Amino acid sequence: MKKTSGSICAPLGFRAGAVFCDIKRLGTGKGSEKGRKTDLALILSDVPASAAGMFTQNRMRAAPVELCERHLRRDRARLIVVNSGNANACTGAQGSRDAQRMATLAAEAVRSDAIDPRDVLVCSTGRIGVPLPMQNVERGIRFCAPLLARSAEKGRAAAEAIMTSDTRRKEIAVEFKIANRTVRIGGICKGAGMIHPRLEIGKHATMLAFITTDAAISATALRQALKLAAEQSFNRISVDGDTSTNDSVIILANGLAKNPKLHRIKRSSFQIALNFVCLELAKMMVRDGEGVTRFITLNVRGARRVGEAEKIARSIANSALVKTSWCGGDPNWGRILSAIGTSGVSVDQSRVSLGYRRANKGAILYGFRSGKPTNVLFSKLAAITSQPEFEVHVNLGAGKTATTFYTCDLTENYVTFNKGDITDPDSLGG
Amino acid sequence: MKKTSGSICAPLGFRAGAVFCDIKRLGTGKGSEKGRKTDLALILSDVPASAAGMFTQNRMRAAPVELCERHLRRDRARLIVVNSGNANACTGAQGSRDAQRMATLAAEAVRSDAIDPRDVLVCSTGRIGVPLPMQNVERGIRFCAPLLARSAEKGRAAAEAIMTSDTRRKEIAVEFKIANRTVRIGGICKGAGMIHPRLEIGKHATMLAFITTDAAISATALRQALKLAAEQSFNRISVDGDTSTNDSVIILANGLAKNPKLHRIKRSSFQIALNFVCLELAKMMVRDGEGVTRFITLNVRGARRVGEAEKIARSIANSALVKTSWCGGDPNWGRILSAIGTSGVSVDQSRVSLGYRRANKGAILYGFRSGKPTNVLFSKLAAITSQPEFEVHVNLGAGKTATTFYTCDLTENYVTFNKGDITDPDSLGG
Repeated sequence: MKKTSGSICAPLGFRAGAVFCDIKRLGTGKGSEKGRKTDLALILSDVPASAAGMFTQNRMRAAPVELCERHLRRDRARLIVVNSGNANACTGAQGSRDAQRMATLAAEAVRSDAIDPRDVLVCSTGRIGVPLPMQNVERGIRFCAPLLARSAEKGRAAAEAIMTSDTRRKEIAVEFKIANRTVRIGGICKGAGMIHPRLEIGKHATMLAFITTDAAISATALRQALKLAAEQSFNRISVDGDTSTNDSVIILANGLAKNPKLHRIKRSSFQIALNFVCLELAKMMVRDGEGVTRFITLNVRGARRVGEAEKIARSIANSALVKTSWCGGDPNWGRILSAIGTSGVSVDQSRVSLGYRRANKGAILYGFRSGKPTNVLFSKLAAITSQPEFEVHVNLGAGKTATTFYTCDLTENYVTFNKGDITDPDSLGG
Repeated sequence: MKKTSGSICAPLGFRAGAVFCDIKRLGTGKGSEKGRKTDLALILSDVPASAAGMFTQNRMRAAPVELCERHLRRDRARLIVVNSGNANACTGAQGSRDAQRMATLAAEAVRSDAIDPRDVLVCSTGRIGVPLPMQNVERGIRFCAPLLARSAEKGRAAAEAIMTSDTRRKEIAVEFKIANRTVRIGGICKGAGMIHPRLEIGKHATMLAFITTDAAISATALRQALKLAAEQSFNRISVDGDTSTNDSVIILANGLAKNPKLHRIKRSSFQIALNFVCLELAKMMVRDGEGVTRFITLNVRGARRVGEAEKIARSIANSALVKTSWCGGDPNWGRILSAIGTSGVSVDQSRVSLGYRRANKGAILYGFRSGKPTNVLFSKLAAITSQPEFEVHVNLGAGKTATTFYTCDLTENYVTFNKGDITDPDSLGG
């Protein structure tokens, strides 16, 4: 496997395009056209593709999420229409009609071929509870369709159009071999706040991620591969502990690489490549998290069950006090222990150890070992925790199970950004 | 019932005292004696008292919490020794020995009378994972004992000695009648961060609250009364969602009011008064929460079960995005709905309504009603949410159960305070 340039247009037979149609401004009343960031994108497979998706477990799931789930029961799709600036969440029956209308409009607009509206997937991200400005959306879709093309620039344009509070676009592409045929996977994603995805197949994930591949793979195998890949990536990150109403990960596989069709993905090169793509995209989201200054890898081991290791990792990652201590570079393992203690997992304090390590480098320095503080100097620990990236190692001493989780600090800038300014609705976040 | 002046020394037969013995500085290495805020207090009942306590459910509970639980099995106590500046949590076997030693030292130091060390309760609050500087603690206890006296000033001194990040002391006293005898209840508490108490009797709460009363009441009735009072107060608040290793609420009842001994507390004037005292203390903590600029009362109704209403209230109160929107005065009910959706409670979106109301004033203005956005203007909602205090009303439309919860915003100052400055260990929090 090797990384290549580009993203969703790297695999054969995928086209993309993006436009500005002023979706946010009309949602919140007053506003200016400052910036004119693109806010609507289309992603098209030239031929029908196997499709799978994972969506948020938030019970206030948005209308487009419900539409995607319904359409994906057919295991296939050709077209994705996505807007930023408005989540179309908590918008009632009108929201459902609007999502449906986006699918129909997109199917009509892409005239290259007759597209069944049920082969269209719809995603939205932005403020919750504001009806979509459908006139603008409609104009956007019609304007975007003729722009569709297969190029690195078009993939980049789509990656930019889905950004909300993101400061940079998130793209990746890889290629690898299956039975001597070159296969490609490309991906884009967005997400910087309200990031704590708990994606499930058949349930629901405002991170958005779109992954394309020209691999030939059955829909069942594709769904399994996506689930495995998401578990070790999107479902192992948190920026702020808030799980969105709109989180969605969608993969389309159009078979144009003409490899022998994959039916089993366990230990396959496809699974390895997809895991890599998803983990890289997930880490990009954490690094670009709202206000983030430090990237932390949490290693929790010695757990009895994966679920317990995961609960502990989430409790640490979502503690306001732990996250603020990281902001200050403070090796405050006491706050981490306290967060472990409130995870809901039964823990024997006397068996717990906790240490820090530089990112992928050097030995673990323990501040707390087997239930008591060590003599390691505060300054030695602080030398690690004041780095922009470091690792936290927790050993529960209870079992043999481990997990890895990726998170970040909580900074003044996160608060400043998310409190917005009510006299300027354009400043208000999702 | 009426409010009176003073606090823990208002009830007959309770003395208090406080000193500075430099507990924090030695804990973290370098430091100065700037401020010299008192950091050790004693609270003494002149006669043996019925006693009850509730403690944190955090599994990393501190040594003094374990000691209190053990001693309270005897349903009685006379003396409380409490320090700020060091939590004596996650300090291993040494921590247990130190907590025990504090009890023994305090029993010896109060020479007015022979005190059994098992009649001494110990509480600590401050940084986790730092061994107590016992020489200083010992000097503090010896120095404090002869200063014990019954006066409003001494109560105030104790209230100040237990403060950590608090910006003001928290005190209250009331008096009322039982069978024509005047009975008094007094209380002090501390807590501004790591505030999300989940207190249980027989389990474990770094809020600290000390309540004294001269009521004659059986230990069983006292325990029941404390549980009921804590449920509607300390267990209904959150500043930052972090539950401490040291949260403790202790009540001593010495009977000197000479009322007919209470055995049943249901609907008693005692219960009403204790509820009031606990709720006032709990609200003081939220209002003085670290960096807090807004105080929010959450009303959740229409739930099927109290547990569900409570889960939803906690999910809202602990959402970083909801709390930052409150900081900005943004009536972002979409973020609140999203937090409701991730509470783990099954909710029918189409039945949910959400509105805002001025604190104890006016009508509820709904932003979202029966599953869809209303036409109420953003500016009308913002006029409420930009107030320093307001109410959020959620109706789930699923049942007849309701709960009230008290919380606050998340501000830049919370982050600034809690990230501290690693080059100045005195600035580092708990």
